[in-house]
Amino acid sequence: MVSRKYVYLFNEGNAAMKNLLGGKGANLAEMTNLGMPVPQGFTVSTEACTKYYEDGKELAKEVIVQIYEALAYIEQITGKKLGSIQNPLLVSVRSGARASMPGMMDTILNLGLNDKTVEGLKNLTNNERFAYDSYRRFIQMFSDVVMGIEKRKFEDILDEVKELKRVKFDTELTASDLKDIVKKYKVLYEKEMGKEFPQEPKEQLLEAITAVFSSWDNPRAVVYRRLNDIPGDWGTAVNVQSMVFGNMGDTSGTGVAFTRNPATGEKVIFGEYLINAQGEDVVAGIRTPHPISRMQQDLPDCYKQFVEMAENLEKHYKDMQDMEFTIEQGKLYFLQTRNGKRTAQAALKIAVEMVEEGLISKKEAMLKVDPKQLDSLLHPKFSEKELKSAQVIAKGLPASPGAACGKVYFTAEEAKMHHEQGEKVILVRRETSPEDIEGMVAAEGILTARGGMTSHAAVVSRGMGTCCIAGCSDIRINEDAKIFEVGDKVYQEGDYISLDGSTGNVYGEAIKTVEPEMSGYFGKFMNWADEIRALKVRTNADTPRDAEQAIRYGAEGIGLCRTEHMFFDEDRIPAVREMILSKTEEQRRKALDKLLPMQKEDFIGIYEAMENRPVTIRLLDPPLHEFLPQADKDVRDLAKEMGLSFGELKTTVESLHEFNPMMGHRGCRLPVSYPEIAEMQTRAIIEAAIHVKREKGYDIVPEIMIPLVGELKELKFVKDIIVRIADEVIAEEGIELKYMVGTMIEIPRAALTADQIAKEAEFFSFGTNDLTQMTFGFSRDDAGKFLKDYYDKKIYEFDPFQKLDQVGVGKLVTMAVELGKMTRPDIHLGICGEHGGDPSSVEFCHNIGLDYVSCSPFRVPVARLAAAQAQVKNKRY
Amino acid sequence: MVSRKYVYLFNEGNAAMKNLLGGKGANLAEMTNLGMPVPQGFTVSTEACTKYYEDGKELAKEVIVQIYEALAYIEQITGKKLGSIQNPLLVSVRSGARASMPGMMDTILNLGLNDKTVEGLKNLTNNERFAYDSYRRFIQMFSDVVMGIEKRKFEDILDEVKELKRVKFDTELTASDLKDIVKKYKVLYEKEMGKEFPQEPKEQLLEAITAVFSSWDNPRAVVYRRLNDIPGDWGTAVNVQSMVFGNMGDTSGTGVAFTRNPATGEKVIFGEYLINAQGEDVVAGIRTPHPISRMQQDLPDCYKQFVEMAENLEKHYKDMQDMEFTIEQGKLYFLQTRNGKRTAQAALKIAVEMVEEGLISKKEAMLKVDPKQLDSLLHPKFSEKELKSAQVIAKGLPASPGAACGKVYFTAEEAKMHHEQGEKVILVRRETSPEDIEGMVAAEGILTARGGMTSHAAVVSRGMGTCCIAGCSDIRINEDAKIFEVGDKVYQEGDYISLDGSTGNVYGEAIKTVEPEMSGYFGKFMNWADEIRALKVRTNADTPRDAEQAIRYGAEGIGLCRTEHMFFDEDRIPAVREMILSKTEEQRRKALDKLLPMQKEDFIGIYEAMENRPVTIRLLDPPLHEFLPQADKDVRDLAKEMGLSFGELKTTVESLHEFNPMMGHRGCRLPVSYPEIAEMQTRAIIEAAIHVKREKGYDIVPEIMIPLVGELKELKFVKDIIVRIADEVIAEEGIELKYMVGTMIEIPRAALTADQIAKEAEFFSFGTNDLTQMTFGFSRDDAGKFLKDYYDKKIYEFDPFQKLDQVGVGKLVTMAVELGKMTRPDIHLGICGEHGGDPSSVEFCHNIGLDYVSCSPFRVPVARLAAAQAQVKNKRY
Repeated sequence: MVSRKYVYLFNEGNAAMKNLLGGKGANLAEMTNLGMPVPQGFTVSTEACTKYYEDGKELAKEVIVQIYEALAYIEQITGKKLGSIQNPLLVSVRSGARASMPGMMDTILNLGLNDKTVEGLKNLTNNERFAYDSYRRFIQMFSDVVMGIEKRKFEDILDEVKELKRVKFDTELTASDLKDIVKKYKVLYEKEMGKEFPQEPKEQLLEAITAVFSSWDNPRAVVYRRLNDIPGDWGTAVNVQSMVFGNMGDTSGTGVAFTRNPATGEKVIFGEYLINAQGEDVVAGIRTPHPISRMQQDLPDCYKQFVEMAENLEKHYKDMQDMEFTIEQGKLYFLQTRNGKRTAQAALKIAVEMVEEGLISKKEAMLKVDPKQLDSLLHPKFSEKELKSAQVIAKGLPASPGAACGKVYFTAEEAKMHHEQGEKVILVRRETSPEDIEGMVAAEGILTARGGMTSHAAVVSRGMGTCCIAGCSDIRINEDAKIFEVGDKVYQEGDYISLDGSTGNVYGEAIKTVEPEMSGYFGKFMNWADEIRALKVRTNADTPRDAEQAIRYGAEGIGLCRTEHMFFDEDRIPAVREMILSKTEEQRRKALDKLLPMQKEDFIGIYEAMENRPVTIRLLDPPLHEFLPQADKDVRDLAKEMGLSFGELKTTVESLHEFNPMMGHRGCRLPVSYPEIAEMQTRAIIEAAIHVKREKGYDIVPEIMIPLVGELKELKFVKDIIVRIADEVIAEEGIELKYMVGTMIEIPRAALTADQIAKEAEFFSFGTNDLTQMTFGFSRDDAGKFLKDYYDKKIYEFDPFQKLDQVGVGKLVTMAVELGKMTRPDIHLGICGEHGGDPSSVEFCHNIGLDYVSCSPFRVPVARLAAAQAQVKNKRY
Repeated sequence: MVSRKYVYLFNEGNAAMKNLLGGKGANLAEMTNLGMPVPQGFTVSTEACTKYYEDGKELAKEVIVQIYEALAYIEQITGKKLGSIQNPLLVSVRSGARASMPGMMDTILNLGLNDKTVEGLKNLTNNERFAYDSYRRFIQMFSDVVMGIEKRKFEDILDEVKELKRVKFDTELTASDLKDIVKKYKVLYEKEMGKEFPQEPKEQLLEAITAVFSSWDNPRAVVYRRLNDIPGDWGTAVNVQSMVFGNMGDTSGTGVAFTRNPATGEKVIFGEYLINAQGEDVVAGIRTPHPISRMQQDLPDCYKQFVEMAENLEKHYKDMQDMEFTIEQGKLYFLQTRNGKRTAQAALKIAVEMVEEGLISKKEAMLKVDPKQLDSLLHPKFSEKELKSAQVIAKGLPASPGAACGKVYFTAEEAKMHHEQGEKVILVRRETSPEDIEGMVAAEGILTARGGMTSHAAVVSRGMGTCCIAGCSDIRINEDAKIFEVGDKVYQEGDYISLDGSTGNVYGEAIKTVEPEMSGYFGKFMNWADEIRALKVRTNADTPRDAEQAIRYGAEGIGLCRTEHMFFDEDRIPAVREMILSKTEEQRRKALDKLLPMQKEDFIGIYEAMENRPVTIRLLDPPLHEFLPQADKDVRDLAKEMGLSFGELKTTVESLHEFNPMMGHRGCRLPVSYPEIAEMQTRAIIEAAIHVKREKGYDIVPEIMIPLVGELKELKFVKDIIVRIADEVIAEEGIELKYMVGTMIEIPRAALTADQIAKEAEFFSFGTNDLTQMTFGFSRDDAGKFLKDYYDKKIYEFDPFQKLDQVGVGKLVTMAVELGKMTRPDIHLGICGEHGGDPSSVEFCHNIGLDYVSCSPFRVPVARLAAAQAQVKNKRY
C-alpha cells in the first residue's frame, strides 16, 4: 500500500496548494519556483495535522518516515547535516495555517543545536558569542513553546546575569556570559522536566512539529478562530526551513516589509528592519526597529535587490505583499510572503489604484477589501472643535487608524469586564500578546508602550479595525499599581483618555467623536460594488432618522420596519396599555383609534425619508405583556394612573405571563385573536402611503409583512383582514395605490410548507434570528450561559446568531426558496435577520437566489460589498 | 364546456362513492342498486358544498340547473310533482357527510308543502289532520333550521293551543286545531322574517339545500370535527328524497335498528320503533319508543321482511348495520343504512364473532374496531366491595358502558369549568343536544332523564367511550334550581353520584372504582393484532410499577425512561440540589456520588420488571432550576436547610433563571457543561444492567439516549463520555455487556442534519412533543391561551400535540428517517412523543418505516391495534 503524501519539499508545491500546505508553505513553494532566494526546506501538510488529531494526538509512523526523507533531501542540497559537528544544519520550525493567524501559533528557531553542534557553529562562523546566543535562544524557545515551561523563568536568569554584569542590553553580554546562561538554562530545564535537555536533533524536530500541531488547539487559537470564522478542522501545516541568520554582525539583519503602506495604502515600500537581529526581535516588538528606507544607506545592494523582488512579487500575486526577509552576511533571503493585512482606508486606496494602474479588474478589486473592515470607516472620528483645545500628552506609532475614547484599563480581563458592564474601554499595555485577545476585542482602542507597526498589537488591531497606537515610549506603565505616567502626570485606572490611531496622538481627556464622511476611494469603490452586485441591499429601520442614515450608507429600501418600537414610545404607551387592558372589542377599538393617527404619522415620516424606495412594514410582533410593567411597584403606579385596582391589574399582568414568551402569543397570533390591531395598522400604513402620494408625489408600494406565520390558513386569515381594510381605505380615498402582502419565514413549519404559504404570500422575508432559535432549539436570551461551554469544547465554532448556520438553518431557507418558487415563480425573496449584514451569510443569500438582504444602517456598506464579492465568486445556483 | 357533475340520482351512485356522495347518499345509492325499497331521490355532492364555500357561500347556477334536472327525473318516476295540488311531491332534505356526524347536521321534512299543496295532501290521503300536522312540522323545521328562528317560539304557540284545548299530547289536537296553529306559525314567521312564509316549493328546496351546506360550518359541527379528526374541507353532501310517512295511522311507523346489539355485540336485531310517528320523534328522544321486537306482534309481515333485509345488508357490507326505516300504511321503506357505532366491548365481540362466522378475515376484523375505543376497556369499574353496600337510587337505560363517579353539574358550561378545575364531573341533563358537546367531553359520565338508546346522549357517549345512562325517568331535574329529585330526596349541584353505564344503575354517593381486567374477546382480538402488525409497541415508563402495568397492556419494551422523575423524589432532591449548588466540579461529584446508588436501584427495579425486554433510558433532561424553589419563602427554608445564606441561594436561583426555559440549558446541554452528571448516570445504567444480568440472568441491552441534540459534535461529545464510562465499568466488572447509544430527534436541526447525526447515533427516537413545539414555534404551556382562537377561526382543526402534524412536523420526521438510513441503513427508529399513542400518528409511523412507537402504558393497546390496522392498510413506503 502506497502511503498518502504528508510532506512536501518547497519545490513540490505552489501558491494554489494553500489548503494543504498552509499559506506560508504554499508561498514559500511559489517563491522557490519563481527562482527567488528562499532558504530550502519542506512542509508537513495540514492533512498530517488532521491525522495527528484523529490518531489521538500522535504523530503517525508514516508521517515521521516522510519527514526524515525530506530532511535527507535538504541535507543533500545544503551540504549540511542535522547533528553534524563539522557542518551542522539548523532549521526553523513554524506553523502555517490556511488563513493567517498572527501571533497565535508558535515558532522555534535554531533547532538542531546541542552541546556539540553549538561548538561546530562556533567554529564554522568563527563567532562563539553568536553560537551560544543562538543556543540560548533555542533552549528558551523550545522550553517555552514545546515543553510549556514559563518564559519568565528564563528571563529571570537572563536578567540576573545582566544585573551581575551590570549591563543593560543583551548585546552587551559576552560569549562567556552566554555560555554561563546556557548552563543555567539547562539546569532549569532539567529541574522543570525531570530529564536533560534533549541533545538528539531528530528528537528535537519531532517534538517541535508535534508542538506546532497541538498549538492549533490552544485556547487563544480557538478564540481567534471563532472571531475570524476559521473552522477548527482545517488544521495547520508546519514549515521546516534551514536557518539563515540576521544576527551575524553588521552586514546581517532582518525585517518585515509591505509593498505598499498598510495603514494608508500609499504606493511605496513600507517596513522596518533591524541590523544584527533575528526575526523574532522585530515581530515581538522588543527592540524598536528602523524604517526600511534606512537600509538604502546601510546595505544599498541588498536594498535594490529587495525592492525589485518585492515589486515582482506584488505583480505576480496581484496584491499588496507582506514579506519577511533576512540578510545573512550581505546575502538577501525571503522567508515569507503573503497578501498583506491592511486598514480599510488602505484596502480601498490599494484596490482602486491597482485598477487604475491596470493591474487588476474592477471585479478582482472587489475581493481585495474585506467587507467587515468597512465597519471601521463608519466609526466616529474626533470632533474637530474639541480636538483644537485638546492636549496631546504623548505620541506613539499610528498603528491602526480611527478615533477612540474610553476609560483606561491595564489588563485584558479588566477591559473585558468593564466593557461588559457597558463602559467604553481603552486597553493600555506595555505590549500585547495573544493572551490579550479578548480584552483587545472589548476595547475601543489599544495603546502600547513598546513595539512597532508590525508588533502584535498593531497587526491584530488593524485586522479588527480597532484604533491602535503602538510603541508609545513616552508613557511609563506600572501594571501592578494600575497607573501610567507621562512626565509628572499620573493616569489611573478608570481615567478617560482618547487615542487618534491615524496620527499616533494620545490625549489625556475624553474627546467627543463625530460620524465619518464617506467619499473619495470609498465612494468610487462602493459604486463599482453597486455596478457589479445583483443582490439588493435594504435596511432595517424603524424611524425616519435611521432610514435617512441608511440611505446615506447606500440602502435601496427598507426590508424591515418594526412597528412595535413605535408602540413603546412614551406618548403612545398609555394608549397601548389601554388597548391591552380592554375587556371588550369595543374598548380595544377605542384605544386603537387613539393610536391610529400616531402610527400614520410614523409611516408618513418613513415614506418621506425613503422617497420612492420600497418599504416593508411588519405588523406588531412582541407578546402584549412586554408593554405592561411586571414589578409590583410599577403595577401599582400604573393601576393608579389608569384608575384600576392594583389587584385587578396584577391579575391581568399575571394572566398574560408566559412560560416561554418567545414561543407565545405574539406575531400573527395577535391579529388572529384581535383582528382590530391589524385593522388599525393596515389603515395607518395605507392612509400614510396615500398621504405621501398626494402631498409629495412619491409612489410608495407598501409591503405589509405578517410575522411568525407557520400555517397557510393563519396567513390567509390575517391577509384577509389586511386586504379588506386596505381596499376599503383605497376605495374611500378614491386613489390608485398598489400594496403587497407577504410573510416572514421564521418558523420552521413555514419553511417546510413554503409551497403552501406562497399561495398567499407575495413575498418571503427570512427572519433568520427566530428561525435560528427554533431550528437550534435554543433561546438567544438564554444561550449565552451555555454557549461558552460549547465554544470551549469546540462543539460550535461560531455564533449562529452572527453567522448563518448554512448546514441546518440554511437548509430550511434553501428549501423554502425552492418550494416558494415552485408555487409562485416570481415570489420576492429577502432576509431581514441580523445575518443580512454578515458577509458569509450575504454570500449564501446571493447563492440561493434571494433578491435582497436587509440589515442595520451601519452594516449596509458591508452588505453591498459582500454582495458584489458574491457576484464575482459567481456561485449562484 | 361541459359542466362538472354535481348532482347524482340514487341509481347513479354506489357505496364506494362516499367521498363524493357522503355516507348516507352512497348507501342510499347502494341500497337502490341492491333492489331494496328506498324512496327515490338524488344527492347533491360534497364537491357542490366545497364549491358553495369557494363561491363565497353562493349556490352556483350550474348546480341549481342539475338539481332541477334530477328533480324532474324523480317527479317522472314517482308520478308526483313538486308544487302540484293534484299529486304533490314532498321531499326530505338531509345532510350526509363523508363520516357520520350524529346530531350535528340538520334535517328538513315535508318540504314542498304550502297553502295549496297541503290541501292536495289532504285530498290525496283523505286525512286533513295528517296534512296540517305535516305542514305545521314543515313550517317549524324550515323556520328553525333554514331561517334560524328560535324553535321555542313555535313550541310556545303549540303549548298555548294545547292548554286552551286542555289536551296533553300533540296527537290529541284536531285538524282544525292544527289549521289554527299553521296560521299562527305563518304570522310568527312573517313577524320574524319581515316577509311571508315561502310558498314556492323550488325556493323552499334551494333554501333548504343552502342551509345544509352552511350548517357544515356551524360551531357545533366544528367542535365535533375537531374531536373526531374530520377535516373541514371535506364538506357535506345533501340528500333530497321523496317523503314517506310513518305518521299515517296505526299501520304506519318509523324506527331505527342495528343488526347486532351495539352495546354488547350480541347477535340479535336490536332497535326501537314508534307507531304513527315521524323519524325525528325517535332520534330526538322526545317520546320513549318500543323495542323493535314488538313490531313482530304489531306488523308481523313488515317485521319478517325487515329482519331478512337487515341480515342481507350486514352480509353485503360485512359489518354491523345501523338502519332507519319507515312503514307507510303497511309498506316498508329503508331510509338509511350505515356501519353502526358500537361500544368497545361490542366492537370486539362483533369483530371476533364475524371472523368465527367466516364473514370476514382476521385482517378485515382489525378495521372493525376503532383503536381509540379501546381506551374505554381500560377505564375503571366499580369496586365490587363498595358496590355491595351502595344504594341504587334510580335506573335508566344502559346507554354506554363503564363506571363513573363525580360531582353533579347541570349545564355543559358548568361541567366543563369544574372539569378544568380538576374536579370529576357527572353531567346531568333532561336530554342532551349538540350544544352540550364540550360538557360531554369533560364529563366522567352522562345521565339524562329522557331519550332512548339511540338518543343524542347515548350515541355520542358510545362514540366517545364515556359512560352514559339515558332515559332515566325516575329523576326530576330542575335546571334553574340546580337540583334533581328522586322520590323525596334532593341532589344538589356538587353532590357526588355514581353511574354504571353497563347496568343503568344510578347511585347517590361516591363509589370507588377499580382497574378492569382484559381477557376474552379483548385478549383474542389483541393477539390477532399482534400477529398482524410489523410495528413494535413500547411504553414510556419511569418506574417499575408503570413498567409492569405496561407489560400487562402488551408493551414490548421501554421506549422512554425519563431519569429526572427519579430526581424529584423526596429522598433524592437534597442531593440533587447539593449538586446544582456546587461551586466546583469536586463538590458536584460528591453530590453525584450520593445519587449514584439510588439511580442504580431505580434501573435495577425497571430492568427486573422488563425482564429481557429492551429499555431506552434518557439522560437528565430538564433545566436545573426546575429542581430549586422559586418563592422567597421556599428559598429561605432551603437556605436554612443547606446552611447557606438566603442572599447566596437567591442569587444562584436567579442566575439560573431562564427567559425561555424550553429552549434553555437542558438536555444534552447539561452534560456538555457538567460531564460528571452523564458519567454518574451512565455508571448507574451499566452497573444496574450488570447486576441484573448476574442476579437474574436477564440480558438487558441498555439503550442510552441523549436528549435535545442539534449538532453532531454535541452528540459525539456526550457519547464519548458515555462510552468511556460504560467501557470502564464493564472492564471493572469483567463481564460482557452490550449497550447502545442513540439520540432523541426533537430539535429541527437534528432532523435536518440526520445524515450527520446518524454517524454517531445507533438509534433515533423522535421526540415529537418538543419537535412539534419548535416546528410550530409555540410552547405547549402557553399555546392554550391562543389555540382556542385558532380553532374558532378554523386555522387549526386538531391539536398538533395530540395528533402528529404530518404536513410540517411529519416532513421533518420523514426527512430524518431518510437521511439517517442513508448513513446507517440499519439504524433503529422509534417515536416517544405522546403521538406514539394516537392512532393516526401510529399509522404515519408505520408508513414511514419506524421500528416502534412508545406511549404511556394506558395507550399501549390503542397503539397495538393502530399498528395492526396500519399493516392491513399497507401503505408503508
